[in-house]
Amino acid sequence: MNLPEALGLLKVIYEERMPFDRLLGIRIDRLTMTEIRVRIDMREELIGNFIREILHGGVISSVLDLTGGLVASVELLKHLEGMDVDELGKRLARIGTIDLRVDYLRAGKGTFFTATGSVLRKGNKVAVVRTELCNDQNVLIAAGTGTYLVG
Amino acid sequence: MNLPEALGLLKVIYEERMPFDRLLGIRIDRLTMTEIRVRIDMREELIGNFIREILHGGVISSVLDLTGGLVASVELLKHLEGMDVDELGKRLARIGTIDLRVDYLRAGKGTFFTATGSVLRKGNKVAVVRTELCNDQNVLIAAGTGTYLVG
Amino acid sequence: MNLPEALGLLKVIYEERMPFDRLLGIRIDRLTMTEIRVRIDMREELIGNFIREILHGGVISSVLDLTGGLVASVELLKHLEGMDVDELGKRLARIGTIDLRVDYLRAGKGTFFTATGSVLRKGNKVAVVRTELCNDQNVLIAAGTGTYLVG
Amino acid sequence: MNLPEALGLLKVIYEERMPFDRLLGIRIDRLTMTEIRVRIDMREELIGNFIREILHGGVISSVLDLTGGLVASVELLKHLEGMDVDELGKRLARIGTIDLRVDYLRAGKGTFFTATGSVLRKGNKVAVVRTELCNDQNVLIAAGTGTYLVG
Repeated sequence: MNLPEALGLLKVIYEERMPFDRLLGIRIDRLTMTEIRVRIDMREELIGNFIREILHGGVISSVLDLTGGLVASVELLKHLEGMDVDELGKRLARIGTIDLRVDYLRAGKGTFFTATGSVLRKGNKVAVVRTELCNDQNVLIAAGTGTYLVG
Repeated sequence: MNLPEALGLLKVIYEERMPFDRLLGIRIDRLTMTEIRVRIDMREELIGNFIREILHGGVISSVLDLTGGLVASVELLKHLEGMDVDELGKRLARIGTIDLRVDYLRAGKGTFFTATGSVLRKGNKVAVVRTELCNDQNVLIAAGTGTYLVG
Repeated sequence: MNLPEALGLLKVIYEERMPFDRLLGIRIDRLTMTEIRVRIDMREELIGNFIREILHGGVISSVLDLTGGLVASVELLKHLEGMDVDELGKRLARIGTIDLRVDYLRAGKGTFFTATGSVLRKGNKVAVVRTELCNDQNVLIAAGTGTYLVG
Repeated sequence: MNLPEALGLLKVIYEERMPFDRLLGIRIDRLTMTEIRVRIDMREELIGNFIREILHGGVISSVLDLTGGLVASVELLKHLEGMDVDELGKRLARIGTIDLRVDYLRAGKGTFFTATGSVLRKGNKVAVVRTELCNDQNVLIAAGTGTYLVG
């Protein structure tokens, strides 16, 4: 399996094969070996505050967690090129979040939100990824740091 | 407003007034001044792994976050007894998560999950709450530590 | 090497072989397979606030970090009984902190402080440990959660 | 008190008035309203591993914690210009770390290390600061995120 096919597989996994991602309405906006962007559109069900119409903290942490996992997965792909699709699927399914810190910086106001991330540590056992969530005005809403089991 | 009424208000807020809590299917099992237990039942939409049928990490962090917020709210109630309902609602609506760490300890297998928490720090500005999520076998699935703005 | 000898080796490592632990004045008060207690005595060099005479946050995080590492090491020992001393030393030297969260709950006032910890997750790759630091009145001063690489 | 005087006061506080900072050998390399750099030189007492000569994790978290506190203090100064020196000293002394996450990314090898930071959240009650520690080759050794009480 080559890299473009593997990235396509990742997109299908994150958008279609994870039921909770579908419930949230997660979309993978961009997915290359160097750029990853996750998007979620605001809608009534995602509101978390009964007075102000802002994104629920749980939605924010969900998006940052899966964005970090996606970044860690793409990092792992670099070392797995050529692996057959079954093996690759198994390896990707084993990636899991060990721990995550989320800083809720500003109220989650906006019509859509995008999340990006970058690798702080790439190991053969664990990866550490920093993530950010911005609103439609590119205002930073939340930041995350997650440790992922990758091997 | 007396304490039983205030606890009743909290239950309504968390179960009915927060759209994302409704989407998740959050229920407040127990809510007294000394005991708080949040419950979520497993269902297909909450699954996060496309091979194994386990709870999505985002559901876990959502439940721990709101459980911590509820514990911080009940702590705050102790100092707000007698306040009128409008004022109380405003104060409770202002409670917000500053940051949260979640440790994903074991795969989220189970038919239902319960979350509890305890206050580590009670201040007039910030509260720190430790939380735990267990499955129907009372196995610890995840642990959290959150800092909440309360004043 | 049997367990009592291995515990003795750990005590020597933490109290004597780590220069910074000596600088801090770390002592391992209790060290059995089920109970671990680290102690540090207050002295002028450990003060962190130029007005109030309280323990520096860096001392607190140092003690919680090494206490967590010690708890993870003892957990690992359970699986390494009978290993020869060179091999054991190498395995213990490879244990490292991946990440650590510290909550500074109350001002570090006291003549001495003790730290304890418990394992939340024991894996063959990573361990997660919760720790607490109390003062001489047994008041909780700080709490930590650390993820350690153990394999 | 004007800003240059206030920055001078901060430098004195962090380098001379905090006994544990002196024990570590903290130096404030650069301190302006827009650039802050903390430096620590390697020496035998700061080693944390009895086999490899690397910086102790506690030194790393200490440096990241105080760097974050310094960044939060400088942010606060922007709102306190003109305040008299006694009042300013009291406000700065009240700044405290609420919680801190440290990611230990690579072994702390080097002859000296520098730490920098940036504000993620500036509020009148709490500030959130991201920090980084690099070695003399500018390799990222550790990253931190801290929440500070500022008001």
